[in-house]
Amino acid sequence: MPNLRLALCQVNPTVGDLAGNSGLVRDWTRRAADAGAQIVAFPEMMLTGYPVEDLVFRRSFVAASKAALRRLAADLDADGLGALPVLVGYLDADGPPQFSGDAEPGRGTRNAAALLHRGGIVATYFKHHLPNYGVFDEDRYFVSGDALTVVRVGGVDVALTICEDLWQAGGPFAAARQAGVGLVLTINGSPYELNKDDVRLPLVRRRAAEAGATVAYVNMVGGQDELVFEGDSMIVSADGALLTRAPQFVEHLLVHDVELPAAGEPAAPDQVLADEMRVVRAEAGDIPPAPDGPAATGGTIAPVADEAEVWQALVLGLRDYVNKNRFPSVVLGLSGGIDSAVVAALAVDALGPDRVVGVSLPSQHSSEHSREDAADLAKRTGLDYRVEPIQPMVDTFLANMSLSGVSVENLQARVRGVILMALSNQEGHLVLTTGNKSELAVGYSTLYGDSVGGFNPVKDVWKTLVWRLAKWRNADAARRGDTPPIPENSIGKPPSAELSPGQLDSDTLPDYDVLDPILIGYVDGDLGRDGLVASGHDPAVVDRVLRMVDTAEYKRRQSAPGTKISMKAFGRDRRLPITNRWREDG
Amino acid sequence: MPNLRLALCQVNPTVGDLAGNSGLVRDWTRRAADAGAQIVAFPEMMLTGYPVEDLVFRRSFVAASKAALRRLAADLDADGLGALPVLVGYLDADGPPQFSGDAEPGRGTRNAAALLHRGGIVATYFKHHLPNYGVFDEDRYFVSGDALTVVRVGGVDVALTICEDLWQAGGPFAAARQAGVGLVLTINGSPYELNKDDVRLPLVRRRAAEAGATVAYVNMVGGQDELVFEGDSMIVSADGALLTRAPQFVEHLLVHDVELPAAGEPAAPDQVLADEMRVVRAEAGDIPPAPDGPAATGGTIAPVADEAEVWQALVLGLRDYVNKNRFPSVVLGLSGGIDSAVVAALAVDALGPDRVVGVSLPSQHSSEHSREDAADLAKRTGLDYRVEPIQPMVDTFLANMSLSGVSVENLQARVRGVILMALSNQEGHLVLTTGNKSELAVGYSTLYGDSVGGFNPVKDVWKTLVWRLAKWRNADAARRGDTPPIPENSIGKPPSAELSPGQLDSDTLPDYDVLDPILIGYVDGDLGRDGLVASGHDPAVVDRVLRMVDTAEYKRRQSAPGTKISMKAFGRDRRLPITNRWREDG
Repeated sequence: MPNLRLALCQVNPTVGDLAGNSGLVRDWTRRAADAGAQIVAFPEMMLTGYPVEDLVFRRSFVAASKAALRRLAADLDADGLGALPVLVGYLDADGPPQFSGDAEPGRGTRNAAALLHRGGIVATYFKHHLPNYGVFDEDRYFVSGDALTVVRVGGVDVALTICEDLWQAGGPFAAARQAGVGLVLTINGSPYELNKDDVRLPLVRRRAAEAGATVAYVNMVGGQDELVFEGDSMIVSADGALLTRAPQFVEHLLVHDVELPAAGEPAAPDQVLADEMRVVRAEAGDIPPAPDGPAATGGTIAPVADEAEVWQALVLGLRDYVNKNRFPSVVLGLSGGIDSAVVAALAVDALGPDRVVGVSLPSQHSSEHSREDAADLAKRTGLDYRVEPIQPMVDTFLANMSLSGVSVENLQARVRGVILMALSNQEGHLVLTTGNKSELAVGYSTLYGDSVGGFNPVKDVWKTLVWRLAKWRNADAARRGDTPPIPENSIGKPPSAELSPGQLDSDTLPDYDVLDPILIGYVDGDLGRDGLVASGHDPAVVDRVLRMVDTAEYKRRQSAPGTKISMKAFGRDRRLPITNRWREDG
Repeated sequence: MPNLRLALCQVNPTVGDLAGNSGLVRDWTRRAADAGAQIVAFPEMMLTGYPVEDLVFRRSFVAASKAALRRLAADLDADGLGALPVLVGYLDADGPPQFSGDAEPGRGTRNAAALLHRGGIVATYFKHHLPNYGVFDEDRYFVSGDALTVVRVGGVDVALTICEDLWQAGGPFAAARQAGVGLVLTINGSPYELNKDDVRLPLVRRRAAEAGATVAYVNMVGGQDELVFEGDSMIVSADGALLTRAPQFVEHLLVHDVELPAAGEPAAPDQVLADEMRVVRAEAGDIPPAPDGPAATGGTIAPVADEAEVWQALVLGLRDYVNKNRFPSVVLGLSGGIDSAVVAALAVDALGPDRVVGVSLPSQHSSEHSREDAADLAKRTGLDYRVEPIQPMVDTFLANMSLSGVSVENLQARVRGVILMALSNQEGHLVLTTGNKSELAVGYSTLYGDSVGGFNPVKDVWKTLVWRLAKWRNADAARRGDTPPIPENSIGKPPSAELSPGQLDSDTLPDYDVLDPILIGYVDGDLGRDGLVASGHDPAVVDRVLRMVDTAEYKRRQSAPGTKISMKAFGRDRRLPITNRWREDG
């Protein structure tokens, strides 16, 4: 059986940065060549970044993607890397680009892969299954490919597939078996969700069995607005054995030798395959010879705790949002509470303490322990710590307007927002906002107050998970002999907005141990009132919580982008009318 | 030929209000019966309102829609209206409801129509063509129907269709010809866009020719978040004659007698029609007899000027947002400039002067004419006028922080935002924000400052159109002998943010006569740099404008919902990555 040395390049492209992404391909192909690779694969939409959303409608952008692909093929050859077949994702159009609102949306543009070899494009493949749920809107943007591309490389027939092709049975993987391939290369832009890695390996195994072939899976890594791509690239043999698996959340070159069946005589070219696909065959002949020396093995990675996985996802999402948007630094308010403490620790992990400004913004209602806990956090993490008392500004508003009750509470939060934004304007920091998913769900925040900010790392983190993350991060630091970043007092004390005397979250909300399971059922699980009550929740509490969630849609619509770690983060993948009279309790 | 008296009920449902919407159907069916109607049609998704977005994923909601339909059929019969066939849109599911993220999104749920008669459901139809562009995401939410429903009513074969079915050739309308129908009823939730009415009549004519049948088109009216449904219901005969046409932007009962061909012998039931549809036949026998007396004619409406049409759309969108969300009143800042003057005039037209609070928020940079123009506007419109000077609060911030330049400009706008939100909290008003589409496009606004607010009536109105609207509204008032609401000075003076001494918009932006055509090409037309230069725009100005637009995505993402009047309003139907390095000028 032929042996092929595969290189899977788990890299971090940037949306729209065609030149930079092409540069990444050239750099990593060089590294793959140095490791003796005989075929190299990069993620879905590598050249353009992913997802590009409405950039698809721009003729200029589609043309630039196609031109960048041709230039990349030539550049790789000029780099002396032309012998190495390189698979890259890009944006193609095989007809006139569509315009939104056309009678035929999606006409022409393709989520595409190209195999580059010897300065040219020897094969292309157009994604067959287009996802159109959750964060995906690909029915808006692409038309489906109807051909399976099989390329003969080093005596092995290799089928090309893209991301969603893997998630549905009966498509290109079934066709790959009919076409008799030895290897399926699948390039991916698969966003992180909690525990998705636990689903991914069994899925790749099922498809390897369906195709009767080894599957090499390469996934993007990095943050793009609300999405985090986690990597987790792997190779699984036809019999389901996991041969090698890359770490999550870091760029990684996975190089591994695989024995593959020699290609046989191809069937007639007009064969009709599964899902009415036809087959298109190509060849990348004259690839680099099998290297001497021991076989390359990529190793495998042990699974990590959920908290570790989420923490890394949040750090990566924040770091890439800040760096890809070229912010020098971030600023956030430090209340002494758990949410801002966790966000500060995430920011310091993402950017280092020199790029994080933490501001204590005490009012007359701020307790002594709040100020101390904020200062303690600053000391533990080494961030740039400031104190800006808000009382003079609050008092001036109160002297000039007749305000009472909640208006006065919100005023304090808004004065804090004005101060943070003024620091942002004056010094260039991105403001981080720190409201957790439970608060967002029930609307327990001040619009234009504590919700002010450009990015929210914990937007998709339920309050009970915020606590778990804090405890995990501290324990992990202690295990490594480092200073735990988060003051124990911030973890242990009862949550309070401190906007009126003696105020506690529990004055307004059920305990988070009661609240979060209801929210998880309602928001993440789409359960209705009856389903929640049937799960054992107190009907009166359910009604109270659902009413709060149903009336907070407008605040959520105004909230900052933030890293997504679940199926149903608030934001683009969860879409509800604001004007909506539907009430679960009738 | 049989004669049928059709009643098209152009009504205004509310999303999620199943009981209220059912009540509307009963009320308007009574009115139609009183007018002698023999068949009645209500808009798409009448029972649930439209669009319901992710409510589709809630099992409880789908079940409630189906239960409401059955109850409505019984209630109509109990009302003594059972003899009258009534077509209503609703949400159905013929399988287990799908959940987002399923491998098969959209499985089970249907954008459906039911013909109610004699207390029961005599026929259902599932929308065949699902739009998935612009504001539409129906591939996420529904599965396509594959059957044409033909109901024999009063000796006439009537085909049922829904909205997008009309916008694509070769589907249900072609099938309707093959099935030999005499009438196609089409129920719609077709959102307003400038000049869409000019497209709609020729489209209905094409489909009438395709079906070889009379087409009766009923459209929803009213505002739903960013969408305005315009009505514009009509009946067109098979030969393309416009028989009757309802007015835009108001509820309307369109009753018209049409002569229709008698139904013949139906073809074999297993006939396969256009687009692989099959036919399902039903009958609503024993309908009310043809009334005595003269034939009913619905009349037709003369087209109005673009400005009149947009004005009515903006008034309706604002009124319904405020009323359907049960806000007692609105508040907005009055700068003396054109944008806030136009929004104030819209608000007074929508809600009456007693429900509109206008606040002058002068600073040390506010000119005397600004204060006078704001007061003049208040006097002309009769709104509740207040003055809240911002300087004391601005001075307190400046005394406590070291701010300069743009930070000080933004501070003033943010103090205004805090004041408006405090009034909202204290008195219950919805805050209106007044930034026009040109400002939003180039980011010429202060985040959490003048962008503060729950709804923006002019979000999708280019600055040059704001001026045209103001002039039209004043001229229209003068024509009717009323006081023109907008001070001439607000229309005539050069635009200024008045955040620093002598500041003018033209210090920062090209003149709006230059800016708007570039923005229209780039935003509405998806033209790239080269396309804009080829259209005759100055390359240096194009580069400057495109750079501004490309870097303002984050501010736009944080902007308030507002009425949509074009294909590409900023908001949900225009989706660009925030993190995005693509630059048209390379």
